[in-house]
Amino acid sequence: MNSVLSKIDEDLDQSLARLTDFLKIPSISTDPAYADRCLEAAQWLVTDLKSLGATAAIRETPKHPMVVGTIGEGDRHLLFYGHYDVQPVDPLELWTTDPFSPVIEDGRIRARGAADDKGQLMTFVEACRAWIAVHGSLPCKITFFFEGEEESGSPSLVPYLREHGEELKADLALICDTGMFDPDTPAIITSLRGLLGEEVILTAANKDLHSGMFGGPAANPIRVLTRIIASLHDDTGRVTVPGFYDGVAETPADIMAQWEALGFDASGFLGDVGLSIPAGEQGRSALEMIWARPTCEANGITGGYTGDGFKTVLPSKASAKISFRLVHQQDPLKIRESFRQMVRDALPADVSGEFKDHGASPASTMPTDDPAFEAARLALSDEWPRPAAFVGAGGSIPVAGYFKDILGMNSMLIGFGQDNDQIHSPDEKYDVRSFHKGTRSWARILEALSA
Amino acid sequence: MNSVLSKIDEDLDQSLARLTDFLKIPSISTDPAYADRCLEAAQWLVTDLKSLGATAAIRETPKHPMVVGTIGEGDRHLLFYGHYDVQPVDPLELWTTDPFSPVIEDGRIRARGAADDKGQLMTFVEACRAWIAVHGSLPCKITFFFEGEEESGSPSLVPYLREHGEELKADLALICDTGMFDPDTPAIITSLRGLLGEEVILTAANKDLHSGMFGGPAANPIRVLTRIIASLHDDTGRVTVPGFYDGVAETPADIMAQWEALGFDASGFLGDVGLSIPAGEQGRSALEMIWARPTCEANGITGGYTGDGFKTVLPSKASAKISFRLVHQQDPLKIRESFRQMVRDALPADVSGEFKDHGASPASTMPTDDPAFEAARLALSDEWPRPAAFVGAGGSIPVAGYFKDILGMNSMLIGFGQDNDQIHSPDEKYDVRSFHKGTRSWARILEALSA
Repeated sequence: MNSVLSKIDEDLDQSLARLTDFLKIPSISTDPAYADRCLEAAQWLVTDLKSLGATAAIRETPKHPMVVGTIGEGDRHLLFYGHYDVQPVDPLELWTTDPFSPVIEDGRIRARGAADDKGQLMTFVEACRAWIAVHGSLPCKITFFFEGEEESGSPSLVPYLREHGEELKADLALICDTGMFDPDTPAIITSLRGLLGEEVILTAANKDLHSGMFGGPAANPIRVLTRIIASLHDDTGRVTVPGFYDGVAETPADIMAQWEALGFDASGFLGDVGLSIPAGEQGRSALEMIWARPTCEANGITGGYTGDGFKTVLPSKASAKISFRLVHQQDPLKIRESFRQMVRDALPADVSGEFKDHGASPASTMPTDDPAFEAARLALSDEWPRPAAFVGAGGSIPVAGYFKDILGMNSMLIGFGQDNDQIHSPDEKYDVRSFHKGTRSWARILEALSA
Repeated sequence: MNSVLSKIDEDLDQSLARLTDFLKIPSISTDPAYADRCLEAAQWLVTDLKSLGATAAIRETPKHPMVVGTIGEGDRHLLFYGHYDVQPVDPLELWTTDPFSPVIEDGRIRARGAADDKGQLMTFVEACRAWIAVHGSLPCKITFFFEGEEESGSPSLVPYLREHGEELKADLALICDTGMFDPDTPAIITSLRGLLGEEVILTAANKDLHSGMFGGPAANPIRVLTRIIASLHDDTGRVTVPGFYDGVAETPADIMAQWEALGFDASGFLGDVGLSIPAGEQGRSALEMIWARPTCEANGITGGYTGDGFKTVLPSKASAKISFRLVHQQDPLKIRESFRQMVRDALPADVSGEFKDHGASPASTMPTDDPAFEAARLALSDEWPRPAAFVGAGGSIPVAGYFKDILGMNSMLIGFGQDNDQIHSPDEKYDVRSFHKGTRSWARILEALSA
C-alpha cells in the first residue's frame, strides 16, 4: 500500500495535468450546442481508460453517450460511477478566469467541472493508475461507468440500465459525486432523501382582468395559490398533506448520538448564508432536519405582473413549483396523489388546477451492515485527520436508487467535495488536497474492499 | 338644439374622417421612440382646435406636451379633459389590421386609440364644432385640456397643475374617458375607487440555496410571503389589515335600489371572462363589490425558479405587488402604514422585508347634489334609449382627484365606451354609434349646463 501511496504522491503533477486536460473540454450537457464537446469528453475518457490497460468504449444513447470500461480480475467486482458532463457557466462575468481554462493556484483547481464531477471521478481513475503502476494489475475487477447527462436530468440513464445493465452489475457500486463532512472529516453517505417535484397551475378568468373593473367579484388565482401554499405547513413547521408522515421513522438514539458527536456547527452552516435560526420543524436539530426529516418547499412561484413598476391586473393564472424531500419509506406516488387531492379540495368555484409531474424518487438507505461499509470507513479514516463518518445527505442522487431498483446493486457514496466548492456556480473549484488525498483514499478503499 | 343635432348628423362622415386622421398618428407615450409622434398628435389637436376658432397652443412638459385651448364666452366656464396618447400595440400579430391604419366597418372604428381616448375626446370637439357652425359661437366658455402621458402614468400632470393650473380652473371639469352602463344606457360616474399600490420584497438567505442541502433549516421567503398574502383576507372575504374599513360607509338603501333597478347582469359580466360566481366579500352583490366596496388583491408574485422544468432552489427573495382599491373616506396613507406593520409583524426570524411605494390615491365621490349632474343626466337621457344612470366605477381616474385637490374643481365623468371596446388590447374599436350619439350627447349637455 505504501508504495501505491508514494506513487500517487510522486505523480501528483501528472495527475493534475491530466485532469486539467479533461477540464478544458466544455462538456455542457444541457446545451445542444455543446453536443460535440460532450462526445469529445467521452472519447477523452475512453482514451484515458485504455491507457490504464482497460477495455473501454463509448455506448451511444439518444443524447450523450455513456462510457463503459473494464479492467482487472478477481472475486470482487466493483462498479465505479461518475459523470463527465458539467453545468452551464453563466453568469460568465462572475468567473475570475475562463471556466474552461483551468487554473491551479492557492491549492485550488478552478474550472467548471473541477469538483462536479470531473475532479472527483479522476481521483478514482488516478488511484487505479497508481495501483497498476506499482503492482501491474488491480486487486479486483473494476467496471467504469461514466454518464454524460447527469447535469441535464439523466434522460438516458434508466432506459440504458434497463437495456444494457447486465454488464454493469457488480458486487457494489462506488459513486464519487458527494462531499466530506468537513475539510478534515471524510464521509460515507448512508441515506439520501427522495424527491417529489410538482407544479401547480391555477386558472381563474380566461384572461387577465383589470382590477378596477373586476376587483371584488373576480377570483384571483394568486390569492387561492398563496392560501394553498400557506396551508401546506402547520404552525410547528410540520407538513399538513394527509398521510405525509407515513413511513417516516424516528432516528434511533444511537444514530442521533453519533451525529451529535460530529459537532455540526449549525449556526456556522446557517450563518454562511445569512441565516441564524433553523426554520423547519420545531424540536429538531438542523442536522436531523436535513438528514432524516422530510420537507415541503415552494421552489418557485409566479403570477400576474412581475416586471418593474405596477400593473393593476387580476391575473388569469398563477403557478408554483413545489418539491418534497422524502425520507425512509415515504411513498412518493401516494404523497403526490394526496397533495393533488389537497389542492383540488382547496379550489374555490371558478378556479381550476392542473398539475405537472417533475419526477418522483423515494429515499435511499444504504446497507451499512454490509462489512464493506465499515471497511471503507476505516480505510478513509487512515487517510484523513479525523475518522470518517457515516452521514445522511439532504439531497437526492437518483443513480443510487436506479442501481438498486434496476440492477439490485447497493451503492457506496464517497466524495471529497467541500462546502465551498461553488458547484453549479461561478468559480467552481476543487481543492488540490481533495484531489490528492481523495486519490490516496480510493487506493486505501480498493485494498480494503478487495481483502 | 335640433339644428345642432342635425348638423352633427350631416357632418358625421367628415367628423369620422377627422378622427381617422388623428388615429393615424402613433402617439404611444410610454415608448421614447414615439416621442415625435406624440408631439405630432398634440400639434394635430392645436390645429384642429384653431379650426374651431379657439386659441390653442402646446405647453411643454419634461416629456409629452399638454394642449390647452380656449373658446367661447359666458358666465359658465367648463374645462374639457381628454388624452391624445395611446397604449402600445403589442402583440401586433393579434390585430386584424394595422393599429394605425384605421378601418371603419360593421359600424366600428378599429384602431389603437379609437376608444381610449382619441375617439372619445373628439366627440366633444365635434359637438363644439357643430354648435359653432350653427350658432356662430358656443353657449359658454370652454377650456380644452389634453394630456399626452395618461397611458404612461401622467408624470407631468400634477406638477403642471400645480404650476400652470390657474388657467384651467373652471366651474366644472368634463372628462370623457369612461364607458356607458350598457349599450343603451349612458352613465355619469358618481364615485371612483382610490388605489394604493404596494410592493413587498422579502429576503431570507443571502443567496439562493439548494433545497437538498438546506431544505428544512433554511427559511423560505416564498412560504413566508404566501402566509402573509393568505392572511390578508378572512374566510368571508373581508380584508384583515387593521383599520382597513375605517371610513367605509354602507351604501344607502336608495342608492342600492337604484343600482338594482339597472338590472346589472352579474352572471353575464363574469361569464364573459370565464367566471360564474362573485368571489369577493360574502353577502355583497357583484355591482356593490365593484362600485362601493374596497378590495385587496395580489397583482403579481414572483420568487425562485419560474422557468420551464424544475430547479430545487430555496430562493433568497420573493416579492409581491399588492393593491388596494379604496372607497369613501378610506385613508390610503394610514392603510399603507397598517399594511406594512402587519407584514413586519408576520416576518419570522431571518426574513427581512422591504417595501416599494407604487402610489396612493383616495377614492373620489362626485357632488351629485350639484344641479349640473341632474341636468346632464336628463340631457343624456334625451339622446339614448334608456335613461342615464348615476353609477359607481371600480377603477381610478386620478385626474379627477387632482382637479379636486389642486384646483378645487369638481369633475363630471361621462363617456361612451362599451365593455367590448378592447381598450389596451389588440383590435381596439369604438362604435360609430358611440361616436355619433356621443357627439350628440355633448351638444345636449352643453345646452343643459349653459342654461
